[in-house]
Amino acid sequence: MMEQIKNKKSKNIKFNLKDGQSPDREPIKRMLSQMEGMYLDNVTLNKMLSLGDRVVYEFYDLGMPENSGELAYGTTILYPGKVGDEYFMTKGHFHAKINTAEIYYCIKGKGYLLMENIEGDTELQEMTPGVSVYVPPAFAHRSINISKDEPLISFFAFRADAGHDYKTIESKGFRKLVIEQNGHPTMINNPKWKSK
Amino acid sequence: MMEQIKNKKSKNIKFNLKDGQSPDREPIKRMLSQMEGMYLDNVTLNKMLSLGDRVVYEFYDLGMPENSGELAYGTTILYPGKVGDEYFMTKGHFHAKINTAEIYYCIKGKGYLLMENIEGDTELQEMTPGVSVYVPPAFAHRSINISKDEPLISFFAFRADAGHDYKTIESKGFRKLVIEQNGHPTMINNPKWKSK
Repeated sequence: MMEQIKNKKSKNIKFNLKDGQSPDREPIKRMLSQMEGMYLDNVTLNKMLSLGDRVVYEFYDLGMPENSGELAYGTTILYPGKVGDEYFMTKGHFHAKINTAEIYYCIKGKGYLLMENIEGDTELQEMTPGVSVYVPPAFAHRSINISKDEPLISFFAFRADAGHDYKTIESKGFRKLVIEQNGHPTMINNPKWKSK
Repeated sequence: MMEQIKNKKSKNIKFNLKDGQSPDREPIKRMLSQMEGMYLDNVTLNKMLSLGDRVVYEFYDLGMPENSGELAYGTTILYPGKVGDEYFMTKGHFHAKINTAEIYYCIKGKGYLLMENIEGDTELQEMTPGVSVYVPPAFAHRSINISKDEPLISFFAFRADAGHDYKTIESKGFRKLVIEQNGHPTMINNPKWKSK
């Protein structure tokens, strides 16, 4: 059954097509220090942190009503960089209501969307400006920026009641990683991946 | 209860940021001849049609699985033009599952999204590049292009099981119209609107 609808207000929110930033809202910022344990090369991560912290990515959470008939949306801005050979990436997450999809529409940059479900199926899609990537229901998803100098910027949308499960990826990791090998992005098995 | 998930495939579909067109899929085209009865000035519409038919708008339907956990998405391209004083517009529709929202992210052009629910609440939001417009659940929605020369192009997303109810608007119309008065877009009461 569908929840009762109380929201009768439309919204008009700008997300600049050049830099993904909104003049109307404050983004959530994920710092390098908050990515501890997410990268393969923790020694290099700690060396980088000893020189100073920095923003790895930003995204918007508009606080939409958590109702199956509503949508959550905004932009995500992933800065360029590497930790050792591993490209800057978002933590990645499942939806708490796991059987819900997500759509990304890339407006700037160059990178990948890495997806993985509980059964171990992996999907990897390239993101360049004008490319939409559909994350099917039940797939964890992570953005990866392979550009040397440009942020990877996408507009995203998903069901507003989908929620976030960050813990599964924080504790197990993704089965696959995208790293630079001989100057090229390469998908490898994650040696730190835990089955439980 | 959520439907069983069968779709395990991600998608990568390009929608060009400059013209909204996809090299991967065929759009649905709505011709001026299919807009009979939708505009205020039917005499002018018929005069225009006697000179030849033309595309008013195009949009993509990717045929996503009609499941509450999936999303439908694509671009909509509304060409510039007027029928008398009334700007080119989409037919507009409710969702068949009425309590479902939709999100538009404008990538080009200048116009409006006109929204209206059964109770008669009207919402009007301006669309310019980089502006997201949120259509709350239960609101019919119509794009309106007020530019003289540019198409109005948006990326859209909604729940894949939402469906379309075109008939309500085809038979009743919107309560409000946006027309040009003294060179400016102006919202007026629709003299042809029917309460039943």
